[in-house]
Parts: sequence; C-alpha cells; structure tokens
Amino acid sequence: MILLRREIGDVLRDARQQQGRTLREVSGAARVSLGYLSEVERGQKEASSELLSSICEALEVPMSQVLREVSDRVAAVEEPSVPLGPHAAEAGVLDRGSLVSAA
Amino acid sequence: MILLRREIGDVLRDARQQQGRTLREVSGAARVSLGYLSEVERGQKEASSELLSSICEALEVPMSQVLREVSDRVAAVEEPSVPLGPHAAEAGVLDRGSLVSAA
Repeated sequence: MILLRREIGDVLRDARQQQGRTLREVSGAARVSLGYLSEVERGQKEASSELLSSICEALEVPMSQVLREVSDRVAAVEEPSVPLGPHAAEAGVLDRGSLVSAA
Repeated sequence: MILLRREIGDVLRDARQQQGRTLREVSGAARVSLGYLSEVERGQKEASSELLSSICEALEVPMSQVLREVSDRVAAVEEPSVPLGPHAAEAGVLDRGSLVSAA
C-alpha cells in the first residue's frame, strides 16, 4: 500500500537536506518539536494539515510544489517503469531505493 | 492558511460525484464509516494515509491523480508572489516552478 505520509516525509526531508538545513533549524522555524518533524520525515507520523503548512513555510517551499513532487513519486510507484516483482510497488520499493537515508 | 485536508476532501467528493456514486456506496467499498467519509470530504477530518489509500481504491482513482489535482488546486490559491527566501533557489523551487504542465 502506498502511504501518503511516507512520500510526504521523503519530499520534506529531501527539501531540507538540499538546503543544507538541520532538523533543529527547520523545526524551530516551523514551531514544531524536533522529534515530531523527524517522525514526519520518516513517515512515522501523519502531519496535520496545519503543521504541513507550517513546515512548508519554514522550508520556503510552496505546498503545491511539495504535493506535485509527492504525486510524481506516487505515480512512479503506481506504474513502475522497471519490471519488478508483483509486490514491489505495494512495498514502495522503487521510491525507497532511490533515496538517501537521513538516518 | 491553505489546508491540505480541505483540498483533498474537495477532490475526493468531486471524483465521487462525477461517478454518480453515493457516500454510502463509496464508504462501503472503502470500508470506512459513512460519517467518516463525509467528514473527510468536507475537510473536517484528516484522512490517515491508510484510509486515503482505501478511499482512492474504492473510487478507482490513482492516488497520484488525486494528489496532482490537489496540487493544482493549492497552486491556484497560493499567492503568485509567494516570497521565496534565500533557500528557495537552492532547493530548486524556482526552476521547478517552470515545469508545471499545462494539463
């Protein structure tokens, strides 16, 4: 099953890392706890709409851009261009494999 | 503040109504309560990632498509002169903004 929170977490983490910013910096700017932001980035916690908005603002990335990237990632998993096993898309293997882990 | 749950709710409701289906039909197919689905459609409740996935499946609409429509709606209401800070260019936001498709 494709989980929105995982894809959102990946996109938010990528945006933060591309800016060379720490969890502490962004969580402070977004007024969320460091632990909460970390869990959101790892797809372990659903970000409420209000907090997603705050995080996007802290990252200075339009929410529409985050959602477009999420949509693209989900689409890639829905229709894998590389032949993989039947459970690959379900497990999110394509998306996960291409990402650099923050942990 | 742009709230993701409201935009998602609008897109899900539009998809259901375009199919001429009732809340009862879709909530049954998605195995969520009618009241819950109704609240999600009205943007009053955050849909968990698992339930969003179930609702998309029940509607037979790829989640990526729902998210793309949500992204388009959010982009339409975002202020065109969103003040992009010093991190925006680093994150590639400015470049990616020009990639928005005409679809």
